[in-house]
Amino acid sequence: MKLDTVRIVLVGTTHPGNIGATARAMKTMGLTELWLVQPKLFPDQKANEMAAGADDILNQAKVVSSLDEALVQCHYAFATSARARELGLPGFAPAQAATYISEQMDAKIAIVFGREHAGLTNEELLKCHYHINIPANPQYSSLNLSQAVQLIAYELRIKIAAPKIEVTTLVHEHARIEDVELFYAHLRTVLKEVEFLKPENEKKILQRMRRLFNRIHLEPLEVNILRGILTQVQSRIKSGQDNNG
Amino acid sequence: MKLDTVRIVLVGTTHPGNIGATARAMKTMGLTELWLVQPKLFPDQKANEMAAGADDILNQAKVVSSLDEALVQCHYAFATSARARELGLPGFAPAQAATYISEQMDAKIAIVFGREHAGLTNEELLKCHYHINIPANPQYSSLNLSQAVQLIAYELRIKIAAPKIEVTTLVHEHARIEDVELFYAHLRTVLKEVEFLKPENEKKILQRMRRLFNRIHLEPLEVNILRGILTQVQSRIKSGQDNNG
Repeated sequence: MKLDTVRIVLVGTTHPGNIGATARAMKTMGLTELWLVQPKLFPDQKANEMAAGADDILNQAKVVSSLDEALVQCHYAFATSARARELGLPGFAPAQAATYISEQMDAKIAIVFGREHAGLTNEELLKCHYHINIPANPQYSSLNLSQAVQLIAYELRIKIAAPKIEVTTLVHEHARIEDVELFYAHLRTVLKEVEFLKPENEKKILQRMRRLFNRIHLEPLEVNILRGILTQVQSRIKSGQDNNG
Repeated sequence: MKLDTVRIVLVGTTHPGNIGATARAMKTMGLTELWLVQPKLFPDQKANEMAAGADDILNQAKVVSSLDEALVQCHYAFATSARARELGLPGFAPAQAATYISEQMDAKIAIVFGREHAGLTNEELLKCHYHINIPANPQYSSLNLSQAVQLIAYELRIKIAAPKIEVTTLVHEHARIEDVELFYAHLRTVLKEVEFLKPENEKKILQRMRRLFNRIHLEPLEVNILRGILTQVQSRIKSGQDNNG
């Protein structure tokens, strides 16, 4: 794992100054890859002012219109949100998350930061596999966005840039997030076709399925098999209907 | 050692926004005591804007005219400056410094941060007993002032307030093995009914599915949902066949 392959994703940032301060925070720790989901103002002079020499990070930043797009090519996503805990995502302290990330040799990792006030939506949280819980004063836990990025980047630098003993880790091949998303979409379609999903339970069931399969870290072949099963179910239902019609 | 007895000292701060951001950074980690040596502008509206609710820290902040005054009542002072190393001050990484500070039961400790561009003078550095060296990208090591405060405050919080960080160890309810076996049997039946399993691939596919779902540690509710889906698929296929027959 190299520091400059970790992707920082900011979702719905309101203040361009925070984007600039984030770029600076990243660069001080050796991170370079910044993706912005629907920033309110970007590019913006205030971002460049706050970047204070980290303009290269801003210039390379990718602006996209959804979290899905920002997670393209990634194998895991970490959400930085206290609320992720309520949804049952497995949680790490920053140092633990950094250790874990440092051990993922060939995986592409995204760390997702939410809106300044509203954070991430439940839907966005459920696209992530883990959450990182930054320890904070329970009476006043609202870290500035770029400060949160700074802490995570700092822990990553300590764990990744510091020399360490090579450990034999289980080499999983990981499916890409976008391929897993296509599986979720396919699953949803089939669950509707077999009338398992109804308007009153649809959201809850789909959240449950997402939570379940995100825990596994699907491999590419597994995604293929699961989608093969879904396709076969569809074709069997359709052939029944065709014969019937 | 208590967090709120550690004194943060900012020397010669130029931008009042950095003072506000520092107050916020301190408060998120449970620090409260801020001393300002000859700030260029303070109080200032920009400081309050950036404090974002940590105004109490700003209101209690002491403004003094020299570092000597800011170190009154303290037993040790830590300088955060890369240049302190050149002067031969004993150096710590942030986590080490925080551990050391956490062990000083009755000592009053100050942590001193220099000017945004010029840092601390040699004279000021030599009034400190130790320095803290924040790890950073050697090509771009200029952390924003409030970011440096945030990192140190974070390490202090970990070492002083939360020596054992509480991690969300996911309290899973685990499904019983026999119930998961019933799910596997049901899955096999349905995969045969939809003609996904064929004699030549059956063994391999079922092994794959077992490996996949065993990795998840299914919860009882998840087993119920998965079996509900299988039952619904069966009923849809059957209704197609019945209508057909």
